[in-house]
Amino acid sequence: MKAIEIHKNDGAARLGTLLTGHGNVDTPVFMPVGTQGIVKAMTHKELQEIGVTMILANAYHLYLRPGDELIRRMGGIHTFSGWDGAILTDSGGYQIFSLGVLREIKEDGVLFQSHIDGSRHFLTPEKMTKVQENIGADIAMCLDECAPYPSSYEYTNNSVELTSRWAGRCKEAKSQRQQMLFGIVQGGFYKDLRLKSAQELLEMGFDGYAIGGLSVGEPKSLMWDMVDTVIDLLPHEKPRYMMGVGMPEDILDGVARGIDMFDCIIPTRLARNGSLFTWSGRINLKNARFTEDAGPIDKACSCYTCRTFSRAYLRHLLVSHELTSFYLNTIHNVFFYVEFMKRIREAIRKGSFETFYHNFITKYEGGEFNDNDERSVCNGY
Amino acid sequence: MKAIEIHKNDGAARLGTLLTGHGNVDTPVFMPVGTQGIVKAMTHKELQEIGVTMILANAYHLYLRPGDELIRRMGGIHTFSGWDGAILTDSGGYQIFSLGVLREIKEDGVLFQSHIDGSRHFLTPEKMTKVQENIGADIAMCLDECAPYPSSYEYTNNSVELTSRWAGRCKEAKSQRQQMLFGIVQGGFYKDLRLKSAQELLEMGFDGYAIGGLSVGEPKSLMWDMVDTVIDLLPHEKPRYMMGVGMPEDILDGVARGIDMFDCIIPTRLARNGSLFTWSGRINLKNARFTEDAGPIDKACSCYTCRTFSRAYLRHLLVSHELTSFYLNTIHNVFFYVEFMKRIREAIRKGSFETFYHNFITKYEGGEFNDNDERSVCNGY
Repeated sequence: MKAIEIHKNDGAARLGTLLTGHGNVDTPVFMPVGTQGIVKAMTHKELQEIGVTMILANAYHLYLRPGDELIRRMGGIHTFSGWDGAILTDSGGYQIFSLGVLREIKEDGVLFQSHIDGSRHFLTPEKMTKVQENIGADIAMCLDECAPYPSSYEYTNNSVELTSRWAGRCKEAKSQRQQMLFGIVQGGFYKDLRLKSAQELLEMGFDGYAIGGLSVGEPKSLMWDMVDTVIDLLPHEKPRYMMGVGMPEDILDGVARGIDMFDCIIPTRLARNGSLFTWSGRINLKNARFTEDAGPIDKACSCYTCRTFSRAYLRHLLVSHELTSFYLNTIHNVFFYVEFMKRIREAIRKGSFETFYHNFITKYEGGEFNDNDERSVCNGY
Repeated sequence: MKAIEIHKNDGAARLGTLLTGHGNVDTPVFMPVGTQGIVKAMTHKELQEIGVTMILANAYHLYLRPGDELIRRMGGIHTFSGWDGAILTDSGGYQIFSLGVLREIKEDGVLFQSHIDGSRHFLTPEKMTKVQENIGADIAMCLDECAPYPSSYEYTNNSVELTSRWAGRCKEAKSQRQQMLFGIVQGGFYKDLRLKSAQELLEMGFDGYAIGGLSVGEPKSLMWDMVDTVIDLLPHEKPRYMMGVGMPEDILDGVARGIDMFDCIIPTRLARNGSLFTWSGRINLKNARFTEDAGPIDKACSCYTCRTFSRAYLRHLLVSHELTSFYLNTIHNVFFYVEFMKRIREAIRKGSFETFYHNFITKYEGGEFNDNDERSVCNGY
């Protein structure tokens, strides 16, 4: 089935529409992470008001709790969670390797213990395909092995070959036509292994292609080397998804290379820590200079939080550990990302993406604020 | 200044309008607790949509952090917090005695250490009047001593006399005309001391009268004995406020006796624990029987949470410790309380409060659910 329509190119940047069973999604798109089918500290109605059209849920977490069979019995993740926009489920490969304990990778699948209750599970490509079909998101991902950084050439090569065999088994196991299945390009930080991974997946043919295993602690230049290595191989007529990325500057660099889809825990997690995005850089609300600051987080922002609350009061809520602080800060950061993606799409539409890119970076990095101090390792939730 | 207009009596129950500098408030009213000027796990816009017109903030907490002087400089609590409905500040007497450490009560005031940073503070009636004027709520409360339960007659008598002297000093210290000041009737669980306290406050004259020191662990019958002892003494033309109460059944019993105002942490705190009010009794969402329950919390409820989410999904969010769970459950419980108070007022308007009372209790206590297992000690936040 056709997964994306590309309306316009501006350099390598693409303006498109992702076609899902739960609405059309303008691309490039950023998917906030809603591990359990809901974005942390947000309600669906708030997300919809902000303009979020697609979220990412996690098959590993949902498989462990409440269980994919329960979700199937309850009518699938859309009915169960009440979110009727588009949903993509990450297969959970990354989580098995980052959260699971006692993990043991075999040809057939991966054995691990739950981070919740220590129970043992053996997940195969067939099983994770079934799990994701039970969950019933619009897009499912192949089970992959996300090699740690750094990994040796030999380890990574074996990992790529295993990931390819698993991808083939996922495709073979797929029984539903309405759910799209994306392959995930791995290969660590070896160009030839990235190429090999991409080529093997392309031969099998998927509805879309993700680039995985990035933003795991490596230097940025290395990350972009890997994207540059494979991006032109990925078919123009299919969606391209850069997993677990990213920061606004990373999204710009990804869009510039022709990526259509992004996800990252950054805007929601940083919000809960009081680190807030503005068009003039990121601010840390804990900073004492905001104690009596009557202005909004960002004068240039029209989100509910900025229309209603001062930095001083938001800082007070944060340092007082008030729950509402999480909500108000998350509203702001998600709004910022939605607005940011809108402006990116508008720039591509006008053929002025490069200008937008430079204007944004100049203002963002040279702005009033320079609290852009957090590491930009984005993966992991 | 005139604080309340009474439109109708139905037995002792009163239908009225509390007149505040931030809007008219229909009474009987329940004030959700917003210690820091915001109700925990709620946004102002959600509260407004639900129909909340008045909240309770806490002078003790705001004095310690961010400080009343800061709030004054920021334009007062309405401007600072962004809540433009009515606000009442509890003086913090109860909190000083329940949260403060090393407290020492002297004739002049009370010495205690902050529960936040251990700093020492000496608060006098004059100081707490000034603090509340700086905070700038619509209604301030006298600083009182809330005697522990149980307390001896002698202790309680001394406490009543001190509370009366402090109330006189609060009134004397009051410098703002736009802020109302309420006296607090104490007297523990001794009828003659309750009468003495009420009479002494009445002689001084306040804008309204609260009954304090109730719902602190005593048997319900004793609590109502104390209310019955003083309620007829309290002037008909002034607001009557039962502090830290209560559960729905307590509110009915209070309204039946002529109380106009209530506050309690119960609906918001229980919500965060997954204990939810329905017209058929309270349910505990953690209960395994809701694991695959596709119905709403309460079929008879039209709140956002009930319109959108199943018990099964809300249970999943709760057991997964998702932040949104706090938010969705709080929306439901606060909506229930607002709707409950609306129906109480409607019943008084129609002269059918007694019928409403009995119908409610019959359905609530005999309903589908019987998870009404939590202790109804309501005070303390």
